[in-house]
Amino acid sequence: MKWTRFFSPTLKETPAEAEIKSHRLMLRAGMMRKVSAGVYSLLPLGLRVTQKVERIVREEMNRTGAMEILMPVLSPAELWTESGRWPVYGKELMRLQDRHGRFFALGPTHEEVVTDMVRGEVRSYRQLPFTLYQIQTKFRDEVRPRFGVVRAREFIMKDAYSFHQTEESLQETYAKMYEAYTRIFTRCGLRFGAVTADSGAIGGDVTHEFMVFADTGESQVFACKCGYAATEERAEGEIEAYPADEEARDIEKVKTPGMKTVEEVTEFLKKKPWQLLKTIIYNSDGNFVAVLMRGDREINEAKLAKVLGSASLELATPDEIAKVTGGPLGFSGPVGLKGVRIIADNSVANMSNMVTGASEADAHFVNVNLGRDFEPTELADLVQAMEGDKCKKCGEMLSSWRGIEVGQIFKLGTKYSTSMKAQFLDDKGIEHPFIMGCYGIGVTRTVAASIEQNSDDDGIIWPISIAPFEVHILPTNMSDSGLVETAEKIYQGLLDKGVEVVMDDREERPGGKFKDADLIGVPIRITVGERGMKEGIVEIRLRESGETTKVEIGKAIDLAYEMVRDLKKKYEL
Amino acid sequence: MKWTRFFSPTLKETPAEAEIKSHRLMLRAGMMRKVSAGVYSLLPLGLRVTQKVERIVREEMNRTGAMEILMPVLSPAELWTESGRWPVYGKELMRLQDRHGRFFALGPTHEEVVTDMVRGEVRSYRQLPFTLYQIQTKFRDEVRPRFGVVRAREFIMKDAYSFHQTEESLQETYAKMYEAYTRIFTRCGLRFGAVTADSGAIGGDVTHEFMVFADTGESQVFACKCGYAATEERAEGEIEAYPADEEARDIEKVKTPGMKTVEEVTEFLKKKPWQLLKTIIYNSDGNFVAVLMRGDREINEAKLAKVLGSASLELATPDEIAKVTGGPLGFSGPVGLKGVRIIADNSVANMSNMVTGASEADAHFVNVNLGRDFEPTELADLVQAMEGDKCKKCGEMLSSWRGIEVGQIFKLGTKYSTSMKAQFLDDKGIEHPFIMGCYGIGVTRTVAASIEQNSDDDGIIWPISIAPFEVHILPTNMSDSGLVETAEKIYQGLLDKGVEVVMDDREERPGGKFKDADLIGVPIRITVGERGMKEGIVEIRLRESGETTKVEIGKAIDLAYEMVRDLKKKYEL
Repeated sequence: MKWTRFFSPTLKETPAEAEIKSHRLMLRAGMMRKVSAGVYSLLPLGLRVTQKVERIVREEMNRTGAMEILMPVLSPAELWTESGRWPVYGKELMRLQDRHGRFFALGPTHEEVVTDMVRGEVRSYRQLPFTLYQIQTKFRDEVRPRFGVVRAREFIMKDAYSFHQTEESLQETYAKMYEAYTRIFTRCGLRFGAVTADSGAIGGDVTHEFMVFADTGESQVFACKCGYAATEERAEGEIEAYPADEEARDIEKVKTPGMKTVEEVTEFLKKKPWQLLKTIIYNSDGNFVAVLMRGDREINEAKLAKVLGSASLELATPDEIAKVTGGPLGFSGPVGLKGVRIIADNSVANMSNMVTGASEADAHFVNVNLGRDFEPTELADLVQAMEGDKCKKCGEMLSSWRGIEVGQIFKLGTKYSTSMKAQFLDDKGIEHPFIMGCYGIGVTRTVAASIEQNSDDDGIIWPISIAPFEVHILPTNMSDSGLVETAEKIYQGLLDKGVEVVMDDREERPGGKFKDADLIGVPIRITVGERGMKEGIVEIRLRESGETTKVEIGKAIDLAYEMVRDLKKKYEL
Repeated sequence: MKWTRFFSPTLKETPAEAEIKSHRLMLRAGMMRKVSAGVYSLLPLGLRVTQKVERIVREEMNRTGAMEILMPVLSPAELWTESGRWPVYGKELMRLQDRHGRFFALGPTHEEVVTDMVRGEVRSYRQLPFTLYQIQTKFRDEVRPRFGVVRAREFIMKDAYSFHQTEESLQETYAKMYEAYTRIFTRCGLRFGAVTADSGAIGGDVTHEFMVFADTGESQVFACKCGYAATEERAEGEIEAYPADEEARDIEKVKTPGMKTVEEVTEFLKKKPWQLLKTIIYNSDGNFVAVLMRGDREINEAKLAKVLGSASLELATPDEIAKVTGGPLGFSGPVGLKGVRIIADNSVANMSNMVTGASEADAHFVNVNLGRDFEPTELADLVQAMEGDKCKKCGEMLSSWRGIEVGQIFKLGTKYSTSMKAQFLDDKGIEHPFIMGCYGIGVTRTVAASIEQNSDDDGIIWPISIAPFEVHILPTNMSDSGLVETAEKIYQGLLDKGVEVVMDDREERPGGKFKDADLIGVPIRITVGERGMKEGIVEIRLRESGETTKVEIGKAIDLAYEMVRDLKKKYEL
């Protein structure tokens, strides 16, 4: 490909809206352009990389025996009503009405459509198991689209769905997918970890997220040397225990004028934050719940929503708090609290002589004790993990890292097949709901994640497996006909050997061309320069290491070809 | 691929809703399933064929030097407002609001988005010309989706957009695209014609439609031996002329009680239909227009809309007619008609002593004459062509055929670049709007069109260039291990030679397998049967001709491979 025939407008300036490296570089390298918030056009360079990731995904999916299909973007509301997700999915689901007033969702995932299709076609256990996948545009109306294609509203995803008779069969496919995902991200040249994650609105219980290590990642992972790794939504650790006072003292109401925060109250009362019990009122699907948490720790709302089974979970408003507790915001407490579900974090069981709000303005109780002064409806793990918590498996300290989620695999079980009555007959003619798994990969997000990991101050450093081109030929002067002829010869020679080559045939200064070459990050650059021409050599440079080799013009094609082959081997499995 | 690992549910019964062959066969062969009216999932077989068409399209587009990009489905309303299409596109445009209330269209085409992108990037005539294309899902909320993917609401299209400094440059690309389209449809094994067509809502003037010959096609084409060919929206012919009466007679009002149709009136008055002048009142963008047409011919509303420049054109209601003419529906006439634009078909100039409505109930005028009794505002070609009209180029009679439109190329000119202020600087630094072309191919529709042409009572007959598989191996008995082993050996041997093979490894009766093989229409079938095994032979059969060859087992792989190669040659250019 010649650069002048390639629509690849690079930018010298960094667009103001780009907060992270991959977003900046994808814009600067001319890989994409913004159409609307979270909505992008992929330009030739960006599309080439995306198609390479798609090809790897396709090869590895086919390898597992999964079959490619293509389901539509338009997803009828009736199916979402059947599965129960239409009313609960909220504003992230983009919805429209057709000319006849019928509602559709723009598919953010396709569990409903695939389950509907399979229930119409598959009747016998003999046809099981099987897996269908697609690479399709997906839609999610993010509150705050950002980071380019990392958190976009329209993006490309691979989603797969498997159907089984037994849990064992599901486990087999789940393991196969785990392996396929590992192969895919390895072939894409990513450094990543697989962690247990929350399954969110998709449902199901067992799940792993594939996270690309990146400081700019939106997901926090808690991990232990023993191999334990979980996202913050789900991470569990032993939190630091504090000695309980030996004996329960008498409860007492104290004045705490205007003191609403844990710090204010405990400092004033000469206590430690861990001696205070926070009482937070939530509105879960229209019902109020009081949540009790040790004062020095935070509530993990993902865990809470899971325990409560909430579709929507919000902090109660001051008015609602007054209605539930009788007191103002900042002074809620469990003593005397009635008519509401009270759910306490497990750690509360070890607390004694606690400080709590008195459910009236400017007052707290001290020496509150569980069992005597209040009784939670239930205990549960609700605490947000922190670095330094101890691993529940091995007792070592948890550390944390940040990552970008590029893939997730779920065991859905019968969530969709039960609600949508998708059933098969076993060998005795008895009906059972299909046992299902689902498996997603963010294709465009994988491209961005690769850039987060593989780039420097000058630009992108593509792993050759997903690079838009393998070799970049840079003639420094397009008006020097001998030089151009040499460049053309190398260009054609490499094309003939099946190498993917771009040649920068623009009439630009060498400085600008070198900058753009570093920016778009093709792994191997061949510079055909004026000085080299005099010596009969060209310069071959590796983008990653910066290593430069001078080579006789006549040997350049063969050497570059070998280098391509060697680089490719790194990503072959 | 083994059939049992392939999600390809064939149907014995023809689904009731399928009106045409391709729709029936795509459902029966398990190529696709309906999700909603005009919205389909492509199953593995359908997707494979679609991807093959896409590959041919991609190769031929790249060959022209066009560059592949991918623009989003979500198309911001602001861009459509700029181009002027948001208010006029009507109900075919699917629209939605995001969580912040902002409007988007689901792209039916991408002129706005591509023009917006290019105006942000391209400033100099030196960067021209270039062509961008994409293969993307498109949306059109058809009033009456039907014929499967032929008239669907969600479908796959290739659309390309070219940008130029001069008309000559546009013409060059237009000609290149014409050639590329010819190559694409030829390689897909279609019999087709390129005809001049109406450019409809897209705008622009010069345009060709590529029509696949099919009796079930929705488009009618009028063509002449001399090479003239045009769609009914645009076809022009010399219509039969009738002798004008020598002398203008006196106008006279006659009673025509309850006679509203041309036939009723002319029979009653002992006249011929061509002696009557029809007066039809239209509402064009809120303005009323009276259209005059010879009684034996029909008005071509596409021509009329073009002459009027209408965005919306509808027949006036009876109330509106009464307001405009003073009389009821069925009795309109031009005599005394005031305050309204009167537009007459060219043929009206040759009429004399006409019958017209009297613009009052139950009355007509006879002996009405143009110039004396009424005066049209203008004359224009408004007549719907008919077989038997004479070609304007050569005078021969026009014939007509039906077709399915699979591609269209347009010269857009500056329609979008002017309204959206997309400009470049020429060599003198003067700004000009880009001159544009646009070029579409219905990818999924091409698949259906191929089936309309290439099928028989038993099923599909794929041209090998777009066949889902090249060879179909059919072992008649899966419990005969020797037979299965032979089938496996041939299967593996062909795979090793790079042939795309499907093997029907289902434990079904041979009858069902043969039926399904004919249904899905793979070009070459190899039957490994019990009788043949005894004789040491297998049977190779061509789906298209039915020609059958018995061949020694040991020679089957080589012969089948040669046959694949020979069949492929037919579609190579």
